[in-house]
Amino acid sequence: MDILIKNCNLISMAENRKKYERDTDILIQNKKIAKIGKNIEVSNETKIIDAKGRICMPGLINTHAHLSMSIFRETLDGYTLQDWLTKKIWPMEDKLTREDIYYASLLSFIEMVSTGCVIANDQYFMAEETIRAANDIGVRLQTTRTVNDVGNLGEQRIKELEDLIKEYNNRYENITLNIGIHGLYTTGTDTVKKCIELAKKLDLSVHMHFCENEKETEDIKQAYNVVSTVDVLNKYFTETNSILAHVVKVSDEEIDALSKMNISVAHCPVSNLRLGCGIAPIQKMIDKGINVSLGTDGQGSGSNLDMFETMKFAALLQKGKYENAKNMEAYEVLKMATINGAKALRLEDKIGTIEVGKDADIIILDLNTETCQPEGNIFSNIVYNAKGSNVTTTIINGKIVMENRQILSINKQEIFEKCTNIINKISTK
Amino acid sequence: MDILIKNCNLISMAENRKKYERDTDILIQNKKIAKIGKNIEVSNETKIIDAKGRICMPGLINTHAHLSMSIFRETLDGYTLQDWLTKKIWPMEDKLTREDIYYASLLSFIEMVSTGCVIANDQYFMAEETIRAANDIGVRLQTTRTVNDVGNLGEQRIKELEDLIKEYNNRYENITLNIGIHGLYTTGTDTVKKCIELAKKLDLSVHMHFCENEKETEDIKQAYNVVSTVDVLNKYFTETNSILAHVVKVSDEEIDALSKMNISVAHCPVSNLRLGCGIAPIQKMIDKGINVSLGTDGQGSGSNLDMFETMKFAALLQKGKYENAKNMEAYEVLKMATINGAKALRLEDKIGTIEVGKDADIIILDLNTETCQPEGNIFSNIVYNAKGSNVTTTIINGKIVMENRQILSINKQEIFEKCTNIINKISTK
Repeated sequence: MDILIKNCNLISMAENRKKYERDTDILIQNKKIAKIGKNIEVSNETKIIDAKGRICMPGLINTHAHLSMSIFRETLDGYTLQDWLTKKIWPMEDKLTREDIYYASLLSFIEMVSTGCVIANDQYFMAEETIRAANDIGVRLQTTRTVNDVGNLGEQRIKELEDLIKEYNNRYENITLNIGIHGLYTTGTDTVKKCIELAKKLDLSVHMHFCENEKETEDIKQAYNVVSTVDVLNKYFTETNSILAHVVKVSDEEIDALSKMNISVAHCPVSNLRLGCGIAPIQKMIDKGINVSLGTDGQGSGSNLDMFETMKFAALLQKGKYENAKNMEAYEVLKMATINGAKALRLEDKIGTIEVGKDADIIILDLNTETCQPEGNIFSNIVYNAKGSNVTTTIINGKIVMENRQILSINKQEIFEKCTNIINKISTK
Repeated sequence: MDILIKNCNLISMAENRKKYERDTDILIQNKKIAKIGKNIEVSNETKIIDAKGRICMPGLINTHAHLSMSIFRETLDGYTLQDWLTKKIWPMEDKLTREDIYYASLLSFIEMVSTGCVIANDQYFMAEETIRAANDIGVRLQTTRTVNDVGNLGEQRIKELEDLIKEYNNRYENITLNIGIHGLYTTGTDTVKKCIELAKKLDLSVHMHFCENEKETEDIKQAYNVVSTVDVLNKYFTETNSILAHVVKVSDEEIDALSKMNISVAHCPVSNLRLGCGIAPIQKMIDKGINVSLGTDGQGSGSNLDMFETMKFAALLQKGKYENAKNMEAYEVLKMATINGAKALRLEDKIGTIEVGKDADIIILDLNTETCQPEGNIFSNIVYNAKGSNVTTTIINGKIVMENRQILSINKQEIFEKCTNIINKISTK
């Protein structure tokens, strides 16, 4: 069905448009943005959305998540990362069924759609269940079957991933598996090499944790016997597009080396704080021209998938870290959550901006709420005051997935209950 | 009217109760908490609130704000603090009328009530208009007429403050003026001494900015010719209760000295980041036993008054700053936003916990939303996932001020429009 969004205030994030256009119409035809302008005329069959006084902007892009970990929300308090993993998470994960993964993923997609996010870059296991859930609710997805050498199972993991890719990578329009490497500290040279070969052969991106905390950075240097962690990347990763999650503990020299590679950094500010990793040197990466996008990480450490919160933390932390209020202007942060994310996922021709010819991935915001009035600088207002709950409508690939805060394909309450039952079932008290 | 809250899940924050009590009733009689327990029976005239599955907790306490600055929301981006003040804020403030201050304050009270906050500790000018607004909407307030020596008007400011105190300090049940000193870098010895004398004479607290950024800390040392900023406090402030806002740039020795004084620190994490001040060493203060409460600062730098956001930042920043995930357990953060705030404002006998005999300042939360399910650890869930918009009902001094997210005494939309008109009027483009 064609859709006409009437009279919105448009933040297109497109380079060749004004940054803010009031009272603008957007016409969606055949899932794509067909026209942007004033007073667009349409036929009677077109669905009209009155967006007077509301903001339209590109759907947000989450470049690092573990979607099935929604059920582990708020199980972390009082634990160190290591204790949390070994004493809580791993024993619970062992008990997860395929059906559990499906519902846990569905909860994450509900969170995403409700907070204006149209795609996540996911890493976990039983990806086929996450794919099923994404397809059922109608969101985009990049996922993988995470590879590492834990239990010496590297070879088997690669085989599983390759099989999954064969089965799924042309089945759904907007769901892709990429090559997920857990991290260099858990994955040895041979397995890394094979992953990279697979990525090159299939022309897929690599998605990997990198230098999340001090210990990991030291472990990589030791395991690969290098002075700089980036040496490992320079040896193996030069011919792939890679999305590196976290990148908290890197030196100025490593940032410089990263800036010369084909990588994007998926910055996860909330999770990095929660796990005591620190604050990534994002301002320095931006100054060096590195493509920085945003991620929430899994809810275990990131608490939730609200990318508006992630934007706020991303904006504020670099001002605080470097004691410079002029760091991270709001518009740059909006880019991180939209077009930079699209670039990281190699989807910049399809999503990340609102432009004629691109896929229609659009969210509508109502800022007529207590914490957003008066509006002031609109970009600041979105970064610092808007929340996921200000999103009224989420359109993905030309389809309305949420309208007036109602997700159309699903009963939220039912999924909340299912997920509560799952965590109660697997909880080891 | 008496109120019975039925079947809530209670987080009372009281030391002598369990931390979390499911399916509990709270009876409010004559504005006070009369009874807490199971299956409380009441007469037909009592208003019943069904809170099954919802959380009841004490109303939140904001210990540092500039409420009339709501209209300056999101005017800061791209400016340094100094440029923002001299080129934007001060020229606009010169144009503010009494009526403008009234509506700007009203907007802040709408924000507070909508996000579960029952009192703010305010500093600005034309306090009588802020008092009028607080009384109209029914929130508690501590405010002042800020004293400093700018323009050599210290003496006059003290006189104005004393007159206001005489006029207002017994007029309304829950509105008090305290002694507001802008800061030691803007206020000289004589004026500070007189303020302290006034505070002692009238038995009022002192509310002052302190060591917000590196420059202020250096300026204090120079102006008062001291090695440690706390020396100034030790010379003049020993016989008062003082609320020090910010306290970002203090040494370990200064923290140690502060811990021996009768002061509370109003931690404003969001504003401190936004202005590039840094991250206050809160964990060290807590370890030394200092009473730390939370504040939003004005919306100019703090963006909004949502204390749930402030809690999240407070919790996460200390984990990140010290790279220790075990810092700041969620329950401790809830204390900062409730009972610690009450202690800072010397109201711990009235508010800050839900206990029989205390005033009924209670908020009800609905966590049955996308980002809060499954619930996990309830204290973590509130700190990391709940937002102001999860508050359904706000009761202040036994009176329902907001119910089912409707503020009862006021038309929000009207105030949003008034405030938009004010900022448009005074804006100097």
